[in-house]
Amino acid sequence: METVSENRAFGGTQGVYRHTSTSTNCEMTFGLFLPEEAKDGPVPLLWYLSGLTCTHENAMTKAGAQAWCAEQGIAIVFPDTSPRGEGVANDDAYDLGQGAGFYVNATEEPWAPHFQMWDYIAEELPTLLGEKFNLDMDRQAITGHSMGGHGALTLAMNLPGRFKSVSAFAPISNPTASDWGRKQLSAYLGDDEAAWAKHDASLLMAEVGFDGPVLVDTGTNDQFIDLLKPEALANAVATKRQHATLRLQKGYDHSYFFVSTFMEDHVSFHAEALYGE
Amino acid sequence: METVSENRAFGGTQGVYRHTSTSTNCEMTFGLFLPEEAKDGPVPLLWYLSGLTCTHENAMTKAGAQAWCAEQGIAIVFPDTSPRGEGVANDDAYDLGQGAGFYVNATEEPWAPHFQMWDYIAEELPTLLGEKFNLDMDRQAITGHSMGGHGALTLAMNLPGRFKSVSAFAPISNPTASDWGRKQLSAYLGDDEAAWAKHDASLLMAEVGFDGPVLVDTGTNDQFIDLLKPEALANAVATKRQHATLRLQKGYDHSYFFVSTFMEDHVSFHAEALYGE
Repeated sequence: METVSENRAFGGTQGVYRHTSTSTNCEMTFGLFLPEEAKDGPVPLLWYLSGLTCTHENAMTKAGAQAWCAEQGIAIVFPDTSPRGEGVANDDAYDLGQGAGFYVNATEEPWAPHFQMWDYIAEELPTLLGEKFNLDMDRQAITGHSMGGHGALTLAMNLPGRFKSVSAFAPISNPTASDWGRKQLSAYLGDDEAAWAKHDASLLMAEVGFDGPVLVDTGTNDQFIDLLKPEALANAVATKRQHATLRLQKGYDHSYFFVSTFMEDHVSFHAEALYGE
Repeated sequence: METVSENRAFGGTQGVYRHTSTSTNCEMTFGLFLPEEAKDGPVPLLWYLSGLTCTHENAMTKAGAQAWCAEQGIAIVFPDTSPRGEGVANDDAYDLGQGAGFYVNATEEPWAPHFQMWDYIAEELPTLLGEKFNLDMDRQAITGHSMGGHGALTLAMNLPGRFKSVSAFAPISNPTASDWGRKQLSAYLGDDEAAWAKHDASLLMAEVGFDGPVLVDTGTNDQFIDLLKPEALANAVATKRQHATLRLQKGYDHSYFFVSTFMEDHVSFHAEALYGE
């Protein structure tokens, strides 16, 4: 693992690191903010999964999360959203290929050799982080934005016991029924929709739910709200009697101005779960 | 004036606007965050002047200022750092020409026709803002980063009564004695150094000072600290017996991670001055 940069921030350190991933078979870059408390002992870890077109950098510089994580003594990791590089398959569309990994393990060509983002986020990167940094891997929580909200919700529900809490900003909530989902799940996983179900937050919520608190914010003026389908998740949450808070935030759109506005709430929400016991 | 975008943020609105400037003879773009309180009546205005290579966008997306301005009910404006466009003179260097206006009125060719950033920030943009938005122009404060810290300090001291308070992040503090300054002042203003003095914060501080509180933060690990010369400003402040707080922040560098870390302090500092009377 190589250190790309380290900047002092909010009493801690905002680092960027690069490593060769055995899941995605390429170099992967991630951002990690460690609060001051990490000097003295392991700190809880919040995952932030980003949306379409993003790298590790967007949320790291624009979401304003470090201020609140520093206040709570929590680390936050910003993984990339896909494999990248010359030898990695891509597509001209912004919503397929590089920058659009959708947090799945691709089984189809040309994607399968590198697009193994599920394994990367669920297995490889947590192992690396636990080895290299002063993190308490028994206290993890997860959040994300848009495609990353989809990733956060599906990882949380598929890995019971891993995360104490899950939240999302404007998540893609029902990809098996949306143009943000059907195209990508078909390309990465093939046409058998049975393989898609574990990557649909609304289907998972109806089926298994989450053993912890859930917080989801979506803007009423989100320009992509018809693709996000918050109504499907809301219906599943209510039907499942899931412990959850779903908020439609008046006038907010899909941008990082929306994300940063509610970041304090989300970090506080996770801190309560992480420090609760 | 044309609205480029408006995003809801922290209960208010983050807008981007474009207009034809009579000072710089080109289209100019600026960001303006208006807190929710601006719906009900005029709100105080904080100026944020950016550094070399920046546009109106950098601080608007990376400094995290809106959270604190919303909390205090203060508007914040993010002007561009120079004229721009095809007909505007430029230089291959990052620190001269477009993105590097240095907040002066150029008298020399090829810069003079467009590089009138002093007039733009001191006269034209305040007039426009006062006309178009619900701002209390009797309550203004100013801050900035690097070249923008230089701009904030020199505007504040040259326009007595305009600003209730001035602060700066890692300001270029003594440009007449630095490679960040001599090159640009010579290019824009010519070789007569008498014309440079009103654009040097340390010289101004020794000569006239500021009728209000001053706050300056610089990182001890700032990679450009030898160009910034905080020691010149510190010496002038102490000699002048200026009401001021100068802080060297251990381990911080020149990045926006440094700026965002101390933004809450700076906004609180200005709020106290703006609401003090």
